[in-house]
Amino acid sequence: MLEEKTRNHFLIGSDRVEGTTVYGREGNKIGTVRRILIDKVSGQARDVEISVGAFLGMGGELHSLPWQKLEYDTELGGYRLDVTEEQLKNAPTYADTDSDRQHDREYQSRVYSYWVVTPYW
Amino acid sequence: MLEEKTRNHFLIGSDRVEGTTVYGREGNKIGTVRRILIDKVSGQARDVEISVGAFLGMGGELHSLPWQKLEYDTELGGYRLDVTEEQLKNAPTYADTDSDRQHDREYQSRVYSYWVVTPYW
Repeated sequence: MLEEKTRNHFLIGSDRVEGTTVYGREGNKIGTVRRILIDKVSGQARDVEISVGAFLGMGGELHSLPWQKLEYDTELGGYRLDVTEEQLKNAPTYADTDSDRQHDREYQSRVYSYWVVTPYW
Repeated sequence: MLEEKTRNHFLIGSDRVEGTTVYGREGNKIGTVRRILIDKVSGQARDVEISVGAFLGMGGELHSLPWQKLEYDTELGGYRLDVTEEQLKNAPTYADTDSDRQHDREYQSRVYSYWVVTPYW
């Protein structure tokens, strides 16, 4: 164990983010992080893919959201989404078999527009 | 399949980076990415943890390197490290049982100094 004071609490392993529970605005569990979508070159996280309503990793809906919608909650030790379950339900989604969708600019435009986040591109 | 022209080739899933082979300056395989260390809040990748000489995920040496040392090679479809095997061998390292080390500022200072990269902090 490192001394608390010398630990860099600002970093988190990508594998620790994947699979973590995402809490909604009201503190309820609303989904699980599947992966972070990062810029290949700069390493900046752009989107986060979240699975909602899956059971043992099967089924459910997939959403990708702008990274800015995730808030790190130090008390939770996890991420909180600044959205309601209702908002997520109506958000752009795609099937598990179509996860190429998250790389599609037209789809991303709808996502950023829906969440009222200025596109990074 | 999406049309090539509409695909956003700039993004990669964090889970696709983890486990990928890392090639050295001479194009030889020198290790495997274990995880990306990202800034919890901004989502910026800071370091990359690489396992060298592990067999079936066991043993080997762990190194964390500044993200800037990784170069995305479009032809390889993977990452290339701008370092030689010899350089990596002499770089700061830590045991598998001590991976807290990568969060330690004193260790990180040695890493950034060794790789001649300006610290981000």
